[in-house]
Amino acid sequence: MRKNILFIMCDQLRADYLSCYGHPFLETPNIDRLAERGVRFSSAYCQAPLCGPSRASFYTGRYLASHGALVNADPLKLGELSLGDYLKKINYRTVLVGKSEARANQDALARLRIDQRSNLGQRLAQGGFEHYEHFAGIYPDEIVPDDLAYNDYLRSNGYDGENLWESWANSAYDVNSKKVSGWQMRNANLPAAVAEEHSETAFTTDRALEFLSGVDPNDQWCLHLSYIKPHWPYLVPAPYHSLYCKDQILPVVRNPDELQAPHPVFKAFHEQTYSQNFSRDEVRERVIPTYMGLIKQCDDQLGVLLDPWFENTIFVFTADHGDYLGDHWLGEKDLFHEPSVRIPLIVCDPETDAESTRGTVNHEFVESVDIVPTMVEFAGGNICKQRMEGQSLLPLTRGILDQDNKREYTISQIDYSDRGPRVSLNLHPYDCRAHMIRTKNWKYILHEKFSPQLFDLKNDPEEFYDLGTDPEYQAVGKEMHEQLFTWFRERLIRTEMEHDFLFEMGVERDEKMGILIGHW
Amino acid sequence: MRKNILFIMCDQLRADYLSCYGHPFLETPNIDRLAERGVRFSSAYCQAPLCGPSRASFYTGRYLASHGALVNADPLKLGELSLGDYLKKINYRTVLVGKSEARANQDALARLRIDQRSNLGQRLAQGGFEHYEHFAGIYPDEIVPDDLAYNDYLRSNGYDGENLWESWANSAYDVNSKKVSGWQMRNANLPAAVAEEHSETAFTTDRALEFLSGVDPNDQWCLHLSYIKPHWPYLVPAPYHSLYCKDQILPVVRNPDELQAPHPVFKAFHEQTYSQNFSRDEVRERVIPTYMGLIKQCDDQLGVLLDPWFENTIFVFTADHGDYLGDHWLGEKDLFHEPSVRIPLIVCDPETDAESTRGTVNHEFVESVDIVPTMVEFAGGNICKQRMEGQSLLPLTRGILDQDNKREYTISQIDYSDRGPRVSLNLHPYDCRAHMIRTKNWKYILHEKFSPQLFDLKNDPEEFYDLGTDPEYQAVGKEMHEQLFTWFRERLIRTEMEHDFLFEMGVERDEKMGILIGHW
Repeated sequence: MRKNILFIMCDQLRADYLSCYGHPFLETPNIDRLAERGVRFSSAYCQAPLCGPSRASFYTGRYLASHGALVNADPLKLGELSLGDYLKKINYRTVLVGKSEARANQDALARLRIDQRSNLGQRLAQGGFEHYEHFAGIYPDEIVPDDLAYNDYLRSNGYDGENLWESWANSAYDVNSKKVSGWQMRNANLPAAVAEEHSETAFTTDRALEFLSGVDPNDQWCLHLSYIKPHWPYLVPAPYHSLYCKDQILPVVRNPDELQAPHPVFKAFHEQTYSQNFSRDEVRERVIPTYMGLIKQCDDQLGVLLDPWFENTIFVFTADHGDYLGDHWLGEKDLFHEPSVRIPLIVCDPETDAESTRGTVNHEFVESVDIVPTMVEFAGGNICKQRMEGQSLLPLTRGILDQDNKREYTISQIDYSDRGPRVSLNLHPYDCRAHMIRTKNWKYILHEKFSPQLFDLKNDPEEFYDLGTDPEYQAVGKEMHEQLFTWFRERLIRTEMEHDFLFEMGVERDEKMGILIGHW
Repeated sequence: MRKNILFIMCDQLRADYLSCYGHPFLETPNIDRLAERGVRFSSAYCQAPLCGPSRASFYTGRYLASHGALVNADPLKLGELSLGDYLKKINYRTVLVGKSEARANQDALARLRIDQRSNLGQRLAQGGFEHYEHFAGIYPDEIVPDDLAYNDYLRSNGYDGENLWESWANSAYDVNSKKVSGWQMRNANLPAAVAEEHSETAFTTDRALEFLSGVDPNDQWCLHLSYIKPHWPYLVPAPYHSLYCKDQILPVVRNPDELQAPHPVFKAFHEQTYSQNFSRDEVRERVIPTYMGLIKQCDDQLGVLLDPWFENTIFVFTADHGDYLGDHWLGEKDLFHEPSVRIPLIVCDPETDAESTRGTVNHEFVESVDIVPTMVEFAGGNICKQRMEGQSLLPLTRGILDQDNKREYTISQIDYSDRGPRVSLNLHPYDCRAHMIRTKNWKYILHEKFSPQLFDLKNDPEEFYDLGTDPEYQAVGKEMHEQLFTWFRERLIRTEMEHDFLFEMGVERDEKMGILIGHW
């Protein structure tokens, strides 16, 4: 029986901006339908609150400390294996439609004499996915490539200009019919100049449908449908620009106490333009209804895709990270408060073994590194134990409790060396790193060159009070610090030998081969 | 002006078994000559007291925690760059003659569709060196390859049999003219069956001389001359088998107190056959004179090579690790006592800037990761800051003191999962790891799953008393533990982007490209 995989990702989507995760006004019935037919994870975390490194973890099943792609511009090492590699071994087509932050590792390709235009070269340049429709979604005029498919698509639909994505999808007409930029958040209330049916979200769905309609019925496939939205620029076409109003956004989660004697890294992020702007109610009230419209459009597009329903297909719905949206006096992501680091995750497992868990909520810690082993196990492939650092979620979708594999903590990491705070804190790029370890009750954040942060999630679930330098909590901090050190040493850096073979090596085997060390 | 590099390595050579390092009976005038013309480092350490991972560090300039080749059987990741890669960029030929533990990473070669027989494939399979004469030196009959050059060489010189290396170089005739095996240390006092001029050491020198005589005078080259000796099997041809007697070996460094309440990992290694045998004086007295003969032969062979002297050539003489030879009730290497982890290192820099340091001894901590940057700097190449973890030694050979770059500690790591103690300690392979950090006065060893070890080198320079669990020394241990954690986080895992570019990234650059995050 053919088993397919539909791996859906939104970009910068906060878990709590979905109705199945409790949003009181934003109805997302199609995503909710996945939750009804699957398991919704309430404690899912990304490995990095930043697109590129988070996705590198989603696609390799490995933490940042292992794959080493720490900022968006870092290409993956050619030695890393990704979802596409694992599924290729069992004859899957693994196709990306939409955004990934993957890029060609040109130095490595040249050194290993691999032509970037070859199938292999393209696959390596796109994070292991077969080349189909790959874009980054952020192409201002300075960096737009000549052959951007979405620009060609807009042109063929009658739009005119040079960089059509920028001038139509990322632009709007103001009250004076003047074109204004979606990069300015003051324009977020205006409808995008592009028609909804030609927007980047609709285009992405169309390309996915094209792939699905063209796929050989005998092929098994994994489609990674990766919407660039609701990521900024915060602009959405009509009618989505006016579906929600300021009274329907979630109350801001912030406290003046957070700005008293703030941690230097928190302070530096708070001082960034985006955080200053998102700290103003005027901004939140204009931007967040549009953020909601963008999500609603994604949900509607998923409705198009999911009708009719797919047989024998596992669905994974998730996001690469969240969005502060003004919570904690911050915009964007990058740091480790829950709105940034927690992600939505729904796994809809079609097997009959999974009947008992349909529509349930699972509260275990799960992580983006779990996606690769989940999909590979579902597809019947081999779990590559010497590389994959996550755990398959299928035991959880099938109601199997395994106390031994219960995750006691979750990890996320950031390298903010390409963000503003490197300059304002005057740091060497290698010192712009922080590592989060959160247990059920505590969140500890180790900063290079700065004191650690610590939050008591039981008594301060909103993370307003940083206890990192409070002498009363030294013992908790030390214990988590030590857990983090152990975690660092456990990373799977030894990747080139089959895991099972590790147990066969040794003196007995050497002696059978005639290597008799130190015999008399 | 052409500048060449001669990088000489012996295998399992203890620093103190050279006359320039103070051996009272073993005269090594040719190695001493390098010391007279260069700088001898008294505190040089290998990154792993085990051949393969140590060499991976020598050849990549990276620690085990970064390159991930932890045991002899681990091939290097294809994404790692080695000495040969760096020197190739500036048009050097980088040739290995002799032993490396490098092996083909067949899975990766297949995945990246690189033919192992191509020049690129061979270079990747040999740790980045141009294919010339590469062997492992330990080829009992079960694993001998058909095309072993040394076997062909012995055959062409009139030796007969199947696996000639084993039956001639690793075998001897006993008093009854019966052939006996060099694998049995009881035979170490017998001369190898092979004639000295046809021994593996002489063959290695011959092949190096062949390379040197055939090299295009316009080519710049780096020759890595890598003797397999004095590594076991401990057998040497006449006359070297009888040059030394038991009264000329160094006094054993061991103390009955070491066997009282020993650390579990130490105990497990002590219980291995080779340690049990080397704990007997009869064994030491028979084997070590032969070990000395093997070293003397290497020195004599270097005399052949170094006459006449080479102009404009930097010489590096070193070893991949030491040999316990019964010290601390141990044989082999693997653990972190000085006889195992300390290495000889002599750098003979031909530049006139280096005149002031000729014949001096430098006591700074230096490491095998320093070799790649030293050679690349000497050759005029670029230091690859995002990958190379060592420091060029040229400031030291040129008498430049740089207090900022002074190394406060040295690191060495081991994975003993392919050694006997994995079985006797009943460990998962991933738990067979230990990490040493040594400062001037202390040596701290972090063991997975076991308590740490700590030695007070000032008051116990012979490392007899393990203070790892002594409450009185908790503070010292904790501080070194924390240094080790910091060191782990400093590893250069982010390798794929030019180091200098890291400083150009950021908000300002984004905004120039038109990416205006969170503007109002």
